[in-house]
Amino acid sequence: MAILEVGAVVGLGLIGGSFAQACQGRGLFGALWGVDADPRVLDQALAARAIDRALPGLDGLRDARFVLIATPVGAIVPTVRALVPVLRAGTMLTDVGSVKAPVVRAVDALLPPHLSFVGGHPLAGGEQPGFAAASAGLFEGSRCILTPSASSDPSAVEAVRQIWEALGATVLPMAPEVHDRIVAATSHLPHLVAYALVAAVLAGGGPGAFMCSGGALRDLSRVAKSPPAMWRDIALLNRPRILTALDDFEAALQTIRAALEQGDAAGLHAHLERAWQALASLP
Amino acid sequence: MAILEVGAVVGLGLIGGSFAQACQGRGLFGALWGVDADPRVLDQALAARAIDRALPGLDGLRDARFVLIATPVGAIVPTVRALVPVLRAGTMLTDVGSVKAPVVRAVDALLPPHLSFVGGHPLAGGEQPGFAAASAGLFEGSRCILTPSASSDPSAVEAVRQIWEALGATVLPMAPEVHDRIVAATSHLPHLVAYALVAAVLAGGGPGAFMCSGGALRDLSRVAKSPPAMWRDIALLNRPRILTALDDFEAALQTIRAALEQGDAAGLHAHLERAWQALASLP
Repeated sequence: MAILEVGAVVGLGLIGGSFAQACQGRGLFGALWGVDADPRVLDQALAARAIDRALPGLDGLRDARFVLIATPVGAIVPTVRALVPVLRAGTMLTDVGSVKAPVVRAVDALLPPHLSFVGGHPLAGGEQPGFAAASAGLFEGSRCILTPSASSDPSAVEAVRQIWEALGATVLPMAPEVHDRIVAATSHLPHLVAYALVAAVLAGGGPGAFMCSGGALRDLSRVAKSPPAMWRDIALLNRPRILTALDDFEAALQTIRAALEQGDAAGLHAHLERAWQALASLP
Repeated sequence: MAILEVGAVVGLGLIGGSFAQACQGRGLFGALWGVDADPRVLDQALAARAIDRALPGLDGLRDARFVLIATPVGAIVPTVRALVPVLRAGTMLTDVGSVKAPVVRAVDALLPPHLSFVGGHPLAGGEQPGFAAASAGLFEGSRCILTPSASSDPSAVEAVRQIWEALGATVLPMAPEVHDRIVAATSHLPHLVAYALVAAVLAGGGPGAFMCSGGALRDLSRVAKSPPAMWRDIALLNRPRILTALDDFEAALQTIRAALEQGDAAGLHAHLERAWQALASLP
């Protein structure tokens, strides 16, 4: 793949920091610059050689040819808006937000034709946030969804695809609305379920109940260690899709509950086995 | 701890097989015998030296001084009943069932005073069943709940405790009813939630949706790979407690859903943060 002279990462948290480390390890950019509101994070990133140059704001990004926006979802569109007067023609932008349609549509409406935006969502992460949790191998073996739109130049889509592939991800192209519907079920719903499960265990047995648990609760509650503010923002941004996923989940749970209430062993077995079979038949 | 001459394991699945392997590795018994309905499993266990002698039925257990019953939950009480005329005075029995009160109460009602039963539930396992998935280290660092009752001689409770501790488990003593209430929330509920979550993802996006997922869905769906028949039986046996746990869970999810529906960012954040805080403050 072509090596771009100057790349930049805006937001050096878990995803942005891991992206920077992974790119530096592979020499994907002639130079990689980092922007973060927190000067301590910039110092950490410089010390880890995740970035070659630290910038406190967006104004210094004029010479960047590629900008990854890895801020919280609510800051992506304002960041693009702030970058428009700064960047030179032909610069490509991409993001890592967990919700795509509202972001992509807003960017499509504001981006001038001389800039290109490719929506992205790496399906990788972890419940520990921040640069301290970042790692160069985070995207190895992961999947990354790209959601090209009217503001995505085909050559920019191809370049962004090659970068993610170079970091070890399998790239899945998808319409932004399809992304938001599927990920509402496969990511946003599981997070809300995990928070609710922790609340239910607390309600039923208090903190001591967590001592009386094995791998099931550990695994099902892990993502409830994720930052609440991040998941509040994601949930509100993808609200209609998540409500539909919650409908599906509540219906499935109600089906299992009804069989249990009625002592319907055959029905209960059939419901559990359908889920079991679905997982067993995955590649 | 005192080494018992002959111990026996009835049911050489994941838990019974792991218990046998762990005991053999530590020489906890002069000889360890195994009973299983499946002759191939007995062959595997002999080949792995998990047992010293294979028995197709319970009749040969007359000389056992300790019997671990590691059958499916529905077979524990019938196994105890079948063992009563076989075993010699002073023999101790224990089990590994995931539901305790109905089992312990039934055993209390049928066990003659010359035998002792100590209900047990190791909080360890995995979604893959069977002897093939067993491992000698399964209980290292785990917790094991014991539920002594009227039929538990104190010396038997102490002996069973020492055996589990020798295998690396921390033993938690508890009344059977307390066990069933807590574990309904910390284990049985998470399993049913996992099956329902898989069903919801299938309903919303079909099998292909599982491709568009990261660690959250992987972790939250893992235990839905557990055998459906086993979880059907556990759920039916602990039905009232699980229905209460489902009430708590549905209430917690409804609280989150209501805040999301109303676009109540502060309320949504407060609900998620309460769960996050609870996990963060666990030891």
